[in-house]
Amino acid sequence: MTTITPWEVKGNVDYDKLIKEFGVSRIDDALIKRLERHSKNLHCLVRRKIFFAHRDLDFILDQYEKGNEFFLYTGRAPSGNTHIGHLIPWMLTKWLQDVFDVELWFQFPDEEKFLFRDDLTLEETEKYTYENMLDVIALGFKPGKTFFLIDTKHAGIMYKEALKVSKKITFSTVKSSFGFTNEQNIGAIFYTAMQAVPSFLPSVLHKKKMPCLIPHAIDQDPHFRVTRDVISKIGYYKPASIQCRFLPGLGGMDSDGKMSSSSGDNATIFTTDDAKTVKSKINKYAFSGGQATLEEHRKLGGNPDIDVSYIWLTFLEEDDRKLEEIYEAYRKGRMLSGELKALLIEKLNSFLAKHQQSREKARKNIDKFIFKV
Amino acid sequence: MTTITPWEVKGNVDYDKLIKEFGVSRIDDALIKRLERHSKNLHCLVRRKIFFAHRDLDFILDQYEKGNEFFLYTGRAPSGNTHIGHLIPWMLTKWLQDVFDVELWFQFPDEEKFLFRDDLTLEETEKYTYENMLDVIALGFKPGKTFFLIDTKHAGIMYKEALKVSKKITFSTVKSSFGFTNEQNIGAIFYTAMQAVPSFLPSVLHKKKMPCLIPHAIDQDPHFRVTRDVISKIGYYKPASIQCRFLPGLGGMDSDGKMSSSSGDNATIFTTDDAKTVKSKINKYAFSGGQATLEEHRKLGGNPDIDVSYIWLTFLEEDDRKLEEIYEAYRKGRMLSGELKALLIEKLNSFLAKHQQSREKARKNIDKFIFKV
Repeated sequence: MTTITPWEVKGNVDYDKLIKEFGVSRIDDALIKRLERHSKNLHCLVRRKIFFAHRDLDFILDQYEKGNEFFLYTGRAPSGNTHIGHLIPWMLTKWLQDVFDVELWFQFPDEEKFLFRDDLTLEETEKYTYENMLDVIALGFKPGKTFFLIDTKHAGIMYKEALKVSKKITFSTVKSSFGFTNEQNIGAIFYTAMQAVPSFLPSVLHKKKMPCLIPHAIDQDPHFRVTRDVISKIGYYKPASIQCRFLPGLGGMDSDGKMSSSSGDNATIFTTDDAKTVKSKINKYAFSGGQATLEEHRKLGGNPDIDVSYIWLTFLEEDDRKLEEIYEAYRKGRMLSGELKALLIEKLNSFLAKHQQSREKARKNIDKFIFKV
Repeated sequence: MTTITPWEVKGNVDYDKLIKEFGVSRIDDALIKRLERHSKNLHCLVRRKIFFAHRDLDFILDQYEKGNEFFLYTGRAPSGNTHIGHLIPWMLTKWLQDVFDVELWFQFPDEEKFLFRDDLTLEETEKYTYENMLDVIALGFKPGKTFFLIDTKHAGIMYKEALKVSKKITFSTVKSSFGFTNEQNIGAIFYTAMQAVPSFLPSVLHKKKMPCLIPHAIDQDPHFRVTRDVISKIGYYKPASIQCRFLPGLGGMDSDGKMSSSSGDNATIFTTDDAKTVKSKINKYAFSGGQATLEEHRKLGGNPDIDVSYIWLTFLEEDDRKLEEIYEAYRKGRMLSGELKALLIEKLNSFLAKHQQSREKARKNIDKFIFKV
């Protein structure tokens, strides 16, 4: 059985089915062409349709082309260290900020996981908020155009706006949207109102109605579906969104649809893992689409479509031709599983070496990014 | 039928039944004697058992006698101008602050009525917050020991604490405590967590566990029952409380148990009413326990127990002997209904003349009372 809620992604994910169920639109070639008109180089996550679905992206482009500036909104609910899967929507967000030169409002809802998990304290989520902020800054977002909102710290401006949202959402709605029971705690019930706030807070602060585009992993769609219904009722544009597939966990596609740091440190690569750890994790845990023996592999070839190392490269290797060559070589049995893993290890470690350096530098820049009321 | 929730008080209130239903304790003579040991003059609201019930008042006195300082917490949900009924718990609170020389934390939950009433905007509750603050200051609370908390303004410190409370309260609990349905909005569902915060926030801010005493009208008890259950689970003392009867509306005891400003401006005396308005309202609307004709009244006497003017005097006339004389004179028919009304009018107008003066002066002192983070 497949379960997709903002708190749980389990089972094999059928993205075509999700598009129908969630009522989102597919990002088609015409829309990609339209994006291309604004950017010299399309991001590989767009070219490869890893960002596969959207709501109202065409509206955002209409507005932009008319000169009505939009802003970006994405976020991270701190509950642990950042892993590679978390970075995917942020990478696209960074690309969008560069292409359109727009503001990014980045929410750290440090209460969310506290409310939804018994074991987590607010002191722990505060610690993770700090760690997660370093990773966001390390990706190179523009200071002065990037504003961090931390729910418990910015409640002074956010709670009042959340109230306006909350008045329009009943328990029936959150019950059906998130599968709550009567035993859900009242903080968790209220929470979706806080997640809605950054989609219109810039309009409040700038005193003009601005369109909002939210890049996010598809599991957050239930929140934004509720948000879209409500926001227009309180006088703002429905936020648009573009949605990506999940980076699978190292264990492969059929155990977990999404790489979750809560399913064990070995299913995932953290942004703070050192080169040796990365190598060892990929070699040990990355599910292989190769054959059981060398002989068979040479003869029958591997299956890149279920091979986690290959799939990860489709998220991380920007060079299309290189990726195609890998695909062919692996499929034909010219490339062995160990060689494919070595390519991923190299890709990850060269990325992480730079990322970890930027991450250290970010420590002294945090104040530049936290929104000042 | 009698309904008592924090949002609705309807029908004749049977206080003996309430004590049983709510599970509060009666304030008995022994407890009153104990209060008297700390004060030269018992407040008439205590002497007359208008404050008739409590939870853990003995615990507060134990703690105080051991040198463990407590603090007071009360509040006002802004939804209109202040009327005489609102002042009753505040008057006792002021007396308690003077007797025990303790801090008062006064909450203005400016979101509450916004969330529970369709017609009210946050702009309106903000306006009323200002007006209501003037009345609180006018009563003479100590600056430097009296701290106003305005939910939307102080959410920066309150939301985080409310989260800790909210995690321990389920929808089932608020459903049964407040009679919510699934169509209740999620802001209203969360709200009780915000109302709980001032009962332990001073302990957080002062970094020591302090006992809390809440003087309030009995209709707020459902909130504090929930609060008491939760607060001890997160490491603080259960707040104690003392609870008062309602000042009846001018229309009398059997129409409305409580004087509500929402049941029409004529059922109530506002703190801003001028002397002429007070005179006219009392003469026109104050339900009389007198006889139909002068002759009958002289012969049979009036019934002070159902006479609103007399009942109001039991809240406002501090002199016990004077009150007794009035009772006797009215009961025996020596005092006429118009004469009784004239006494109340005089009492109200002399109180309001002073109050309105203090209220004007309060405009420039508001900043001294709003808690500075």
